[in-house]
Formats: sequence, structure tokens, C-alpha cells
Amino acid sequence: MKLYMTQNSGNAYKVRLLLSMLNVPYEKSMVDFPGGEHKKEPFLKLNPRGQVPVLEDGGRVLWGSTACLVYVARKHGGDTWLPTDPAGMAEVAQWLELAQNELHYGLQWARGVKTGIRKVGSYEEYQGYGNAGLALLEGRLKNNEWLALGRPTVGDVACYPYVSVSPEGGFKLENHPAVTAWTKRFEALPGWVKRL
Amino acid sequence: MKLYMTQNSGNAYKVRLLLSMLNVPYEKSMVDFPGGEHKKEPFLKLNPRGQVPVLEDGGRVLWGSTACLVYVARKHGGDTWLPTDPAGMAEVAQWLELAQNELHYGLQWARGVKTGIRKVGSYEEYQGYGNAGLALLEGRLKNNEWLALGRPTVGDVACYPYVSVSPEGGFKLENHPAVTAWTKRFEALPGWVKRL
Repeated sequence: MKLYMTQNSGNAYKVRLLLSMLNVPYEKSMVDFPGGEHKKEPFLKLNPRGQVPVLEDGGRVLWGSTACLVYVARKHGGDTWLPTDPAGMAEVAQWLELAQNELHYGLQWARGVKTGIRKVGSYEEYQGYGNAGLALLEGRLKNNEWLALGRPTVGDVACYPYVSVSPEGGFKLENHPAVTAWTKRFEALPGWVKRL
Repeated sequence: MKLYMTQNSGNAYKVRLLLSMLNVPYEKSMVDFPGGEHKKEPFLKLNPRGQVPVLEDGGRVLWGSTACLVYVARKHGGDTWLPTDPAGMAEVAQWLELAQNELHYGLQWARGVKTGIRKVGSYEEYQGYGNAGLALLEGRLKNNEWLALGRPTVGDVACYPYVSVSPEGGFKLENHPAVTAWTKRFEALPGWVKRL
């Protein structure tokens, strides 16, 4: 298995985390983000969206962090990280969905503005959206150790990266004690790895 | 089963489409969007995100269009609309993910600006993002009748609504003939229903 990633991509970090937690051997392929490699051929042949992560496995190519998480979880994690019963799978999917919405377009885009990667858009808007995401997580984690099913799932893996770096976007994790405690629990899981 | 929806929500329309296509009986509960019912109690008890769709089934409450699609597909559609093998599920998940990204934050937000629902943000940015989504769909559908697995899946259900109304956001579907043909194929599926 080969994971195409960049140094800073939180979306690639999600896949790297799950591969490590499930102890799946893989090769890293670093994509030159500052050089725009992801927006040129031959990378666009792999992923016409021009983004990382991309996962290659025996000729199969998958793009998109959620799709990669689903693939790795179903192939190597049994039902533990992503079950297939309707209610269990849907409960996990709620948090995969939050990661693709309030966390990406709120936490991450606000961080993009603060760090200068993102040149357009309204910081206040992203901040509001990100804070709504954090409030939702706080409400859930106040009475639950994990986001879904009472155990770590790909829902936690998908939500953790952009939450953990949200202070770089001006978000105050100290105002969200249950979220903070959850990030610590997540970082104590076997196989957790740091960002690059 | 009870579906909380609003007249205009494309995300609720996704769930309504799948319920109809799978011939699942359900009750509609119309949420007063102009009156802001979705942002007040008691609705926030059901969904602290303050959005439709919400699906209630025997005491279980699910929010988020993707989670609702996953639930309905797995409960009533067998492996046809959302399989559970790693490669099949991940292939469908790619399109669920596109629907939550380029299509929602591109096609739909551009439409929001055009129709006056959305007061902030850059139309040009959303337009660029939406056009990238349409180009990706066109590339895929040029040689494939359906987005994943050679058959209709929840990937098509998730992508169809905001594509079909994208002309209201200033997008030119006539420049994307394979996408246009796919919307017609989708509309010919048994159980397809119009927007409200």
C-alpha cells in the first residue's frame, strides 16, 4: 500500500494515523506541495481532484480521506473501526460527515486564513462555523469517551487532526474541556503518531 | 421512519430520493425554515447542528445527509446501494465525499449567493470550486453510466440534487454533456421523485 501525502495535509494525516493504529505496513510518497506537484501530471492521473491523500493498493487507486479511511478500516480493521450494521455504520458516518463540513470548512479554513495559505474568504465566517463544530463535539464528548459506539472508530480518526491543530486557527481548545480530554485519550491510543 | 426536512433542502432531498427509490414508507415532518425552527428548541434536541435532514426510526435519531443515506441503504437496500467490501464501499464513499465538498461548498454555496440566501463569501471562489466538481463528474461519467460500481448507488443519490439545480447558481450544465445525460438517467430510475 502506498500513501501519497504532503507534509502538512491534515487529511493525509488521518489516513496515516489509521494505517499506524492498525499496524498496516505502507510506503509514503511525499508530494511536493509548494511546487504544485498535486496540480500537475502525472499526479492528476492518480487523482483528478488534485489533492492528497491518495491511496494505491495493488493497482487500485483511491482519493479522498474518507474513502481511504473506509478502505483501510474495512480491509484491516474488521468491524471494530467501521461496522456494517445500519445503525452502527450510520453513527460513525455522522462524525465522518462533521469532519468534512464544520471541521474542514470551519477549523481548517480559519487556520488557512491565519497562516496565510488561504487568500480569500471570511475569517469570521469560518470561525463561526468551526466553533459550531467544536460545540457539537463538546456536547457529545461531555458524556462519551469516544464519538461513536463507545469505542474509537474512524469517526474519531477523521475528526482529530483539524481539532488538534485548531489553536493555529485562533480557536481556544481550553474552552472545550471535554474535547481537550478526548484529544489526550486519542493520543494515548496504541499506534498514534505525531504530525510530520 | 420520520424524515425532518424543509421545502428547499437539497440534503433532505437526497434522503427523500433514496427512501422513495427503495420504497420505504416514511412520514414527512416539514421544518419551518424561514421561521428558523431548525435553530431553536425542541429541534436542537433532535439535531444540535441545527440542520435538516434528521431521520427518526424507532427512537433512533440520525442527523446529516450522508449518515441518513448510509442508514437507509444498509437497512433497506442490501449491498446494492452501499456494499460493505472494502473496495466497493470505498469507491462509493469517494462520491459521498465529493457531494460533501465541491458540490456542497461549490455548487450549493454559489447558488446560495445567487439566490440571496447566502450573504457572505466569494461567488467566484464557490464557482471555481463547483466547476472543479462538475469537471470531475464529467471525467468520470464520460465513460461510466454511474459514478461507482457500474450501477446506481448512494454516491449518485448524494451527488444528484445539487448538480440538478446548479444552473440556479450560474453553472452551465450544457458544457457537461455526460453529467447532463447522467441526470436524465437518474431521473428515469424507478422511484425518482421531483424536488418539492
